[in-house]
Amino acid sequence: MIVLSVGSASSSPIAVVVSVALLLFYFSDTTLGAPCPINGLPIVRNISDLPQDNYGRPGLSHMTVAGSVLHGMKEVEIWLQTFAPGSETPIHRHSCEEVFVVLKGSGTLYLAETHGNFPGKPIEFPIFANSTIHIPINDAHQVKNTGHEDLQVLVIISRPPIKIFIYEDWFMPHTAARLKFPYYWDEQCVQESQKDEL
Amino acid sequence: MIVLSVGSASSSPIAVVVSVALLLFYFSDTTLGAPCPINGLPIVRNISDLPQDNYGRPGLSHMTVAGSVLHGMKEVEIWLQTFAPGSETPIHRHSCEEVFVVLKGSGTLYLAETHGNFPGKPIEFPIFANSTIHIPINDAHQVKNTGHEDLQVLVIISRPPIKIFIYEDWFMPHTAARLKFPYYWDEQCVQESQKDEL
Repeated sequence: MIVLSVGSASSSPIAVVVSVALLLFYFSDTTLGAPCPINGLPIVRNISDLPQDNYGRPGLSHMTVAGSVLHGMKEVEIWLQTFAPGSETPIHRHSCEEVFVVLKGSGTLYLAETHGNFPGKPIEFPIFANSTIHIPINDAHQVKNTGHEDLQVLVIISRPPIKIFIYEDWFMPHTAARLKFPYYWDEQCVQESQKDEL
Repeated sequence: MIVLSVGSASSSPIAVVVSVALLLFYFSDTTLGAPCPINGLPIVRNISDLPQDNYGRPGLSHMTVAGSVLHGMKEVEIWLQTFAPGSETPIHRHSCEEVFVVLKGSGTLYLAETHGNFPGKPIEFPIFANSTIHIPINDAHQVKNTGHEDLQVLVIISRPPIKIFIYEDWFMPHTAARLKFPYYWDEQCVQESQKDEL
């Protein structure tokens, strides 16, 4: 729709070049990396058919079940993630609500209250199949599979797509945490126009 | 916190009466119906320990895994629902995002596009274990267990607490649909102040 309105609003050479560039971007598999079928998304989808990847993190399987960038969700996003024994998320925080539902396995949630200049030593919470976890907004946290079998969780976040601040350790100042946006699983389908606005 | 600030900001007789009334409301089991532990909610909770009820609907088991009214969520709410064979939701619509993740069983989603004055004959979608469903905002829909075993779903909504418009049939005008708010599982813990604002 953006492409069409740019094309019809002006016929100057610059507008034509912009339109062609946008068209190439929208329809180029090499730019998009993979099809991002926001339009015409089926109402019912088989989760088994969704793409999964570890996004460079050994032991992780991530699937975006219903996503903002991938599927056009506006207010909630849902992931299905499996962590092999020993694998973990980075230490990170985000200013959205997040709820975990643990489907199988067990592990540990590390949670630091972010009232100082850095997260500090986290509190450890055992997590287990059939438990639910809510992460207070902006609190630094990490989930690790400290068990002996796969840890599988459904993750629900608000305000997608997610903007994550990553810490190298629990004593890194909040101001030094690195913003990763778009996040790894959103990179393929984020549109250039969104990037330009940041 | 509201109680404390009212009490300390003024010592007039009216303020004292208001404070006492608020205190009684906050700590009265008879008013609240059941404890609504928004403050001090544990980070990790066992879903098996959460209260469940059919809220007058035979064949339903509803649990609010993470809720607005019950648990203080602001942007997302998660339910775990089990439908016995033959049981169903009402025909209804709501102006929030909704995603289902089918954990087990099978059934049928009935979905009507709300472009006319009434929902009209719905489209039928088979749903099954390991499928995910998104409901377009404001489209009238119904989920029914049309299988032979329990249908269990996780339901994720945005903008809680939910405001539901209920239809008696698919040909009832949108304007005649009945608003049910607070919804059945939110009734126990909705605060009087929220009711007064409506």
